[in-house]
This record gives sequence, C-alpha cells and structure tokens, in this order.
Amino acid sequence: MAAPLLPTLHDPSPIRKYDRAQLRQLSDEVRACVLDNVSRTGGHLSSNLGTVELTVALHHVFNTPHDRLVWDVGHQTYPHKILTGRRERMPTLRQIGGISGFPQRTESEYDTFGTAHSSTSISAALGMAMAAKQKGEDRYTVAIIGDGALTAGMAFEALNNAGVCDCKLLVILNDNDMSISPPVGALNRYLAQLMSGNFYAAAKNVGKSVLRNAPPLFELAKRLEQHAKGMVVPATLFEQFGFNYVGPIDGHDLDSLVPTLENLKHLDGPQFLHVVTKKGQGYKLAEADPVAYHGPGKFDPQVGLVKPASAPKQTFTQVFGQWLCDTAAADGRLVGITPAMREGSGLVEFEKRFPDRYYDVGIAEQHAVTFAAGLACEGLKPVVAIYSTFLQRAYDQLIHDVAIQNLPVVFALDRAGLVGADGATHAGAYDIPFLRCIPNMSIACPADERETRQLLTSAYEQNHPVAVRYPRGSGAGVAPHLTLDALPFGKGEIRREGQRIAILAFGTLLYPALTAAESLDATVVNMRWAKPLDVELLLKVAGTHDAIVTLEEGALMGGAGSAVLEALQAAGVQKPVLQLGLPDRFIEHGDPAKLLSSIGLDAIGIEASIRERFVRGSSNSAG
Amino acid sequence: MAAPLLPTLHDPSPIRKYDRAQLRQLSDEVRACVLDNVSRTGGHLSSNLGTVELTVALHHVFNTPHDRLVWDVGHQTYPHKILTGRRERMPTLRQIGGISGFPQRTESEYDTFGTAHSSTSISAALGMAMAAKQKGEDRYTVAIIGDGALTAGMAFEALNNAGVCDCKLLVILNDNDMSISPPVGALNRYLAQLMSGNFYAAAKNVGKSVLRNAPPLFELAKRLEQHAKGMVVPATLFEQFGFNYVGPIDGHDLDSLVPTLENLKHLDGPQFLHVVTKKGQGYKLAEADPVAYHGPGKFDPQVGLVKPASAPKQTFTQVFGQWLCDTAAADGRLVGITPAMREGSGLVEFEKRFPDRYYDVGIAEQHAVTFAAGLACEGLKPVVAIYSTFLQRAYDQLIHDVAIQNLPVVFALDRAGLVGADGATHAGAYDIPFLRCIPNMSIACPADERETRQLLTSAYEQNHPVAVRYPRGSGAGVAPHLTLDALPFGKGEIRREGQRIAILAFGTLLYPALTAAESLDATVVNMRWAKPLDVELLLKVAGTHDAIVTLEEGALMGGAGSAVLEALQAAGVQKPVLQLGLPDRFIEHGDPAKLLSSIGLDAIGIEASIRERFVRGSSNSAG
Repeated sequence: MAAPLLPTLHDPSPIRKYDRAQLRQLSDEVRACVLDNVSRTGGHLSSNLGTVELTVALHHVFNTPHDRLVWDVGHQTYPHKILTGRRERMPTLRQIGGISGFPQRTESEYDTFGTAHSSTSISAALGMAMAAKQKGEDRYTVAIIGDGALTAGMAFEALNNAGVCDCKLLVILNDNDMSISPPVGALNRYLAQLMSGNFYAAAKNVGKSVLRNAPPLFELAKRLEQHAKGMVVPATLFEQFGFNYVGPIDGHDLDSLVPTLENLKHLDGPQFLHVVTKKGQGYKLAEADPVAYHGPGKFDPQVGLVKPASAPKQTFTQVFGQWLCDTAAADGRLVGITPAMREGSGLVEFEKRFPDRYYDVGIAEQHAVTFAAGLACEGLKPVVAIYSTFLQRAYDQLIHDVAIQNLPVVFALDRAGLVGADGATHAGAYDIPFLRCIPNMSIACPADERETRQLLTSAYEQNHPVAVRYPRGSGAGVAPHLTLDALPFGKGEIRREGQRIAILAFGTLLYPALTAAESLDATVVNMRWAKPLDVELLLKVAGTHDAIVTLEEGALMGGAGSAVLEALQAAGVQKPVLQLGLPDRFIEHGDPAKLLSSIGLDAIGIEASIRERFVRGSSNSAG
Repeated sequence: MAAPLLPTLHDPSPIRKYDRAQLRQLSDEVRACVLDNVSRTGGHLSSNLGTVELTVALHHVFNTPHDRLVWDVGHQTYPHKILTGRRERMPTLRQIGGISGFPQRTESEYDTFGTAHSSTSISAALGMAMAAKQKGEDRYTVAIIGDGALTAGMAFEALNNAGVCDCKLLVILNDNDMSISPPVGALNRYLAQLMSGNFYAAAKNVGKSVLRNAPPLFELAKRLEQHAKGMVVPATLFEQFGFNYVGPIDGHDLDSLVPTLENLKHLDGPQFLHVVTKKGQGYKLAEADPVAYHGPGKFDPQVGLVKPASAPKQTFTQVFGQWLCDTAAADGRLVGITPAMREGSGLVEFEKRFPDRYYDVGIAEQHAVTFAAGLACEGLKPVVAIYSTFLQRAYDQLIHDVAIQNLPVVFALDRAGLVGADGATHAGAYDIPFLRCIPNMSIACPADERETRQLLTSAYEQNHPVAVRYPRGSGAGVAPHLTLDALPFGKGEIRREGQRIAILAFGTLLYPALTAAESLDATVVNMRWAKPLDVELLLKVAGTHDAIVTLEEGALMGGAGSAVLEALQAAGVQKPVLQLGLPDRFIEHGDPAKLLSSIGLDAIGIEASIRERFVRGSSNSAG
C-alpha cells in the first residue's frame, strides 16, 4: 500500500502532478478524512462525500487559487478545505473560533467567494470572469452548482447573462438528483431525461475514450443516436442559453472527470459540464439515506446514526408542523408552501396527510410568495413555511404582491435569530426591521412552544399578512395545547410584577429575562407582537416604572426595541430605555447557547447589562 | 361608417358576441381612446398601443372576470381598463383620487392581481389556477408577460413549477423585443431566433388558415421545415419546460389571435402562446421611437413630443449619470451595472463612453448585485444603479453576497421616497429601515444635487458597501461642483442656528425644513448619513435644544428618526423627539408635491406638526 498522500499536502499545488492512481488514492483518503471528521463534529456529510472526486479533479486540472472555484451553497466544500491547508483545522468545524462549514473569503485565499444560500455561484463567477477579462488576467473561473440550486431564479438570470458573455467561464452542474428535499419542477424532469436510458451509459464510455481529444465527436454520437431513434431530440436547454454543453459524465470517475476538464480548458466561450454524482458516495449508510445524513450530529461511523434513547425535546419546527396538520384538518382552505425545505420546515407529515394542499416549489422563494398571493386572491389560506434568512430572497414579493394587496398569507418564519453552526449567512437576524417597516404586515414573536401554536392560530385568523417568527431548535419546553386556541391579536401580558425596571421581552428571550428579573425584582412583560405593538400595555408599564429594557433575538437597529422607542416618543413619554438584542455586526458560527452568552443575551448577561445601565447609579441611571 | 362601439360598452360581456369586423372597429376605437387620453394626462403609451388587439381578443374569447387575466407589469392595461368600465375615468389616470396606471384589485374585479414590478404574473396566475382546481371551479387563468419580464428569475421559477402542473393556465408571451431598455441576454437572442426567417412569416399565415382547427398541424409544419433544412432544430425552450408552445403569431392580427386563443382554450395542460407585437403600434411617432413614448408627459398627438423651450432643471438621475462618467474617466476600476434601466437610471452617456465597463443585465436585480460582488472580489469598483423599490428584489444578495463579505459596492438608489404617478408599488419608502439593520452597510441621504455628487464620491471612496439614496426628479437646484470632491464620511452639518427646537433632516426635505425653521427660529441640521449616524453632532444638538424633530422621506418605522432615538437612549439622553416621515400605510399615485403636502411633508406641514407638538404648550411640549 502506498504511503498516505494527505499528510504531505499543505496546499493543492502538488496535486497537479499526481498521476491517475495517486488521484484515486487521494480521493480515498479525503473521503475517509471527511467521514472521520464529520462523525466527530457533526456537519454536512452526504454532499461532501459526493464531491470528493470532483474536488480532487478540479484542483488537479486547475491552477488554484489563481483559477477561481466558486462553490454554490458551499456545504460541499469540506474536501476542498481539506485539500487547501485546512485539514488540521477540520476538528474545529462550525465551532466558535473554528473553521466555517461554508467557504469564507476571510478564511482562505482558495475560498474565492463566500456562499451558503443557494444559487449565487454563476453570478459571482461571471463577475470574476468578466473582471479577469477587463484586467487582462488569464484565468479560469469555475462555478460548481447543484441541480437543486439551478431551479432558483437567480441562477437562471446568471445563465441568461453568462451564455452571451465572451469569457473563460465553466459552469459545472453537480447533478445528484437531490437538494435537501427531493427536487421538483420541469427542470428536474428535464435533467432526468438527459440522464435516462442509453444516453448516460453511453456518455460514461464516451467520456473515457473519445472525450480525451475531441468533445465534438461526442456531440456527433449524440446526434446520431437521436437520428437512430427517429426523433427530433432537442439541443439541450443549456445550449439554447449559449453554453457549450458536455455531459452527463460520471462525477466519481476520475478517468472521465480529468480528461473532460482538461479538454474544456481549451475551448472558448462559456462551457457547461453536466456531472452526475451520488450523495453519500462511499459510505453505504449515507448512500442509502442521504437525507438523514445530510447534516447529522456526531455519530460512530461503524454504527451510523442511532435514535436517541430518550425522546428529544420538541422543536419549534415540530410544533409548527403539528399546528399545520391540525389546522388543515379543520379548514379545507389551508394550503402549505415550502421552497425546498420539507424536512427543515417540518412539513413531512403535512405532505403525507394533505398531498393536494402541499406545494414544494423548489428553491424558489420569490415564486413561493407570489404563488401564495395568487392562491390567497382566490380565497384560499396559504401558509408559507420559510426560514427567516430565506425570506430575504422574497422581500419584494412580500411587499409588492402580498402586503400592498393586504392578502391573508401566514409566514411561518423558522430559524429566527441566531442559528448556531451555520453562522452569519443563515442568521434570521433582520426580519423584525425589514418586516416592521412594511404597511399591513404584522409580526408575532412567541415566547415558547405553546405560544407558537397559539400565535400561529392568531395569525391564521387575521385577514392580512402576518409573520410568526420562532427560533431553531427547542425552547422552554412549554407543551402546546391540543386545541386551536388563539392569543389576542397585538396584545402582550405581564409575566412578573416587579418594580422600578420593566423588561419587555419579544420572543423566547422571555425565559432568561424571567431569571434575570428575580434578583433585580424587575417586572417582565411578554410582548408577543413586534407589530402591532401593544402600546396600551407599554404606556401602562412606562407609567409605573423608572426604566424600560427591551429584549429581542434580532437586530437592534430598527427592531422591536426601536418600536418601543417610537411609541414612547409618539405618546410624549420620556423614559430611559435599554435596548438588548443582536449587535450591528455579523455573528459567526458556533454553539447557539455560547453565542447568545457571548453577546450578553443569556440570563447572566441580561442581568449584568441592566445592572450596569440602571442599577450602578451612573448618570444614565433611572434611579 | 359604423356607429361607435366604445360608448355603448360598460363591461366587456358584449364583446364576446362581436364579429371580426366589430372587433377590428373596437380595436381602432380603443387605440384612439388610449392616444387621446394619454396625450392629455401623460402615462405609459407605447406599451398600451401595442396591446390593443390582444386585449380585445382576450375579452372576446375569455369570460372575464370569471376567467382571470393577470397582466405582467401592468403598464399595458389601459385598453383593458377602457374595456372594463373605466373609460370615463381615464382622464383621472395616475392622479390623486383617480385610477391607477397599473391593475389594482381595489379598483375593479377585472383587475385580478395588482402588478407594477415585473415578472410576477406567472406565479400569481399559477396560484389562481391551482386554487380553481382545488376548489373545483372551471375557469381559465391567463398571464400576459413581456419578453423583458421573462428574463427575471422569478418568471423562470414560475415556469419551472407551472410546466409540471395540471391546471388551466395560459401564458402569453407578448414579445415586442423591447423592455424599457433594449433586452439583453441569451433568452432574447433565442426569441429572436424563433422569429427569424421564414419561421415567423409562415406562422402568420398558419395562424390564419390552419390554426383555426388544428394547432398540431402547425407543429407538424414546423418539424417539416426543420427537416427540410436538414437540421436538428430544438423543441422550444418552453416545450422543454412542459408547456405546449404555439407561435409566434402576429399580435395585431385579430384573424390570428382569435382562432388561436379559441383553440388553446380547448387544450389540456399548461399552454404557452408566443405573440409578436409592436410597441407604439398605430401611432407613427411612437412606432418610430418607442423609448421616447414609453412614458411621455402631456403632448399634442398631431405634433408629438416637443423639446421644452427652456432647459428643464437637472434631475438627480442626471447628476448621477454625470458623476458616473466623470469618476469612470478618473478610475479605470469603475464598472456600472443596471438591471434594464439604462434610461431611467441615467446610464445612456456612460454606455456610450465606456461600453466595456457597462453592464445591462436585463430585468435581473438578484444577478446584478451578486455579479457586482464577484467584480468587487477581483478588485474592480462596481456601481449598481438601481431604483430603491427594485433593490427589494436583491435584498438577500445585498446581505449575503455584499454586506457579509464587506465588499466595496456602491448602490445608487434612484427614486427613493415617494415617486408620484407610479404609486405605492414604486415607492422607495423602505430602504433606510431595510438597509440600516444590515451590518457593514452605510446609507447616505444627500440634500440636493451638489451633495448627491459629493456623497457618491464619498461612497465610492469607502472600502465597504454604501447606498446613496436620492429622489425622482429634481431638487433644490444647487449646481454640483465639476470636481470630484467628497463630503466627510458619516458627518452632518448645522445649516441654520436657531433655538429650542432642532430639526434633523435626512435628505432633500432639508429645504422645506429650512423654510419651516424661519418662523419657528429652529435649528436645522443636515444629517446627510442615516448610517453611520453622526452621533457626536446629534448629542451636541441634543444638549443645547429642548426638543428634536427628525425628518425623512422614508418609512418612519425603523427609519433614520429611529436611529436618532436609539442613539439618544444609548447615550442615556432623554429628549422629546418628533419623528416626521412616511406613515405606516401605502400611499397611492398622484402628483409628488401634492402627495408630500397631503402627509404634511412640505414646509407648511412640517411647521404645523412641530407647532402642534412642541409650541402649543401641550403636555408633550418641550417648553
């Protein structure tokens, strides 16, 4: 057995000289390294096992970092990180101070563009390629994008522009027939056609023999096959967009990948390579269930994932999923919409029970929201289940199609606030400011599981758009009622009667606030709604306390605390207010509880901030 | 000559029974009515002249409003409005209290979906069609979309979903080869191919003879023609997306339109009709220059547009265009990007002088911003010229691709604030709140033309993203310097020293504030930056005045005034503050000055609001 290669690699330059056997050996080592590390740290697994050979081939053929690799989504870049000087930091993956689970420009010069949300890679790569052209720099830019990401509109916008640009751009479609949820729509059906029948099998062999020297022969073979079938077979969609299309080829076969990439380097104009990979490749358990191994926690690779002995705490996502099913059972008008997040948004059960009222639109947030608006126009009651961070993709649609027309669409905003290991790109930090400024919108901030269900019902009862925001994971553990009872629209409640200081909590930070209030003997108000604000309750509390503290897991600038300031001033009330929430900087990945603690949003930090401002007797004191 | 039909029509139901001659006569009358009205009121002209026959044919063939028409963008719906009971209200078009220039659900049951931003129609129509299916209602839903609008990602997302849906949906591509700016990209090139050569000519005749009974024959003819050329001609892109494609047909020929639409009604599954129209059709001057007649003011139809005798005031758009050229001449790194708004954003001269650094990406705001991020990664200096309201389309890209990576991209936000005749859909009301909450972003609010140029230079000098927001039209008329001098980053200035009350103006409302301040003897501060806020100046002013007034042409909730409240509280300063700006409701179309006056944002209104709050001696008084 050959000596291990990976320990000798500190950057990818030696890989350029590897022969095919060495590339295969390196691939095996990288795959083992991914599996070993992810089983210890948790993280994305299936996607990274699927891109091992492609990554090795890219660093073999292209002169990185001079040539630019842009990885779409970026959750498949562990092999890339391992090969670009970060192998030894893999044990710190997604932890505070450790390396990110996504590419980051600040982390490595090999990470040419930070990604995490899907479908940005072609736009970014085209920008880089056109910049190289303008600057007269001779380099290749390669975007690697999955079939799921290709369904998003911005990928289409980029293809539409790239296909007519004269620059050194290669788009690699990493087709694994699986985004997180199963892919949907016409494009996916089309890709399946490209891979069906003899077509794919022939392509595999063609890749080995013919492509080495002459891609056009492959094209000829395709056309001959088409003629043999007596059919007018279309030029591929990608050719119609101006790309030279090559593929599909086997993305785990270095004997296909390497010569094809070598050939494509020497062709002019925008190139499109269709590569077929298998998520979880090389780890049988992940191959068999790539969804389960999409983003596992720690596990023993010999054993695989095991069900925890005791049932884990119910997540907010599960509370939403149960509410959706119960409400759908009670009201035939309900329809549920997800942009490719069936599992993440808790819609698995809903799809099973109400398949005719379930719409997975693919990674297509813009369409999801306007589609919901269309449904609402006809008297249905759409519920759009979407992560807070992904609603950013549909902001204009929310304003222009839903809010201006004041349509009754419920937005179930999962992952509001910090999200932990996924980091700044996925933080649901901005929804209160960006929704609050939109007329007709309401925003509910449930404090726990029970309120999440109740406020979803409150939202559903309204005849205008309402967003209900709740965090990733589990909360205080307050069991929801089985009924579909609602809480009053736009009304909060006093949870603890204290004196001098009133803490106004918006959302799940109510619970650390209650703890902090004990030693302070502060009043605690569960505000529940960021918009409309319960001004009556606010003014009552302001009238009986010396100082107010606002608390939210969201951006401070323009957030719920600012709503409190605005309302006090509108009422002509002068009162010291301390705003606690997310600061004006991006917060990197790490353990959620530790992150909240690091910015003073646990009980200890909340108490400390209040004492510093209002209790120490400084000039800012309310006393 | 037959008696006029239009005066007898109060709804479109009689049109169903019209014979072909009557339909032609009605079309002529509608065209004359559009021209007559728009020449008196101003408004969109070319697009409406182009859709006369299509509109007449749709109301003839379909059972509106039971069948749903969704007009993309909606600036081509004057014929539709004229035929659906609003002919007599046409003289009130786009005026306060009058009818909108776009479809509005609140205006008519025939306006099934409000549009104005492009590319929403297929998503909305699919929602309606699927709702009809779920409810068991037998109706057609028709989306009418232009070729420019089809380049936006959300149209693609919708096609991707619609093509696999089993519902009664007809998408009509109104192909006039011209969005506001010339269309760009691969899709447009592709559409041109579809129309090229014999193809289109044949289709025109086929439409008349064959299509009446059997669309498949047309398909056969196409394939025969393809075989005759010895080529493997692709199935159309739209067929690959699952639609049945018919076309192209002549959109001004009722003898093609009516039988084709009749036929399509009886086919199952998603249908796609490619119609070719001419913008400005039937009015020679508009046919010759559809861009000039895209959205003219009032004019004499006999004479056409005339250049005003005196040069009009320089607009903010022109100031930006001149700055862009001057800065590009001084710095080879500058690149200018527009999403299909060359004229509107003032880039005509820049394109002429710097064609290699000019990118019109089509209606593709998402791509525009991430493309800019890619360019910035390679050391270029992108300036994205975009209307405030259209930046909403690229909000996630601004956060995820620009701000998180802290890339130096300048956003030149035209049409910030109210926009007047285009109404609520186009208002640039939300940019301060939605940008302010994003870390790394800065926001400049120039008060006049000179400052616009200076603050663009200040923005360009930064090494992080900066938005410069300026309104539609012209301002105080302060001539810009010819140099490229900058103003200090994040710093405001005191413009008038007064007493007791300090008005802090963000942007062009500085000038009415200065007027209002005279009789109040108030201090006026030109804040210039909404973020970073000039806290030093704020605290100085707060320390020497009894009350503060904040003033901005933007949403109050979370806006610049809220930034002032946050900063005062963070500094422990209690001070009465009156926030003036756009209220929390959508503001309809009308004359911009009258609209501002109606919400108290002219000098008289500003003074009145301040007096009411701080001078009358109420309990809220600062005195």
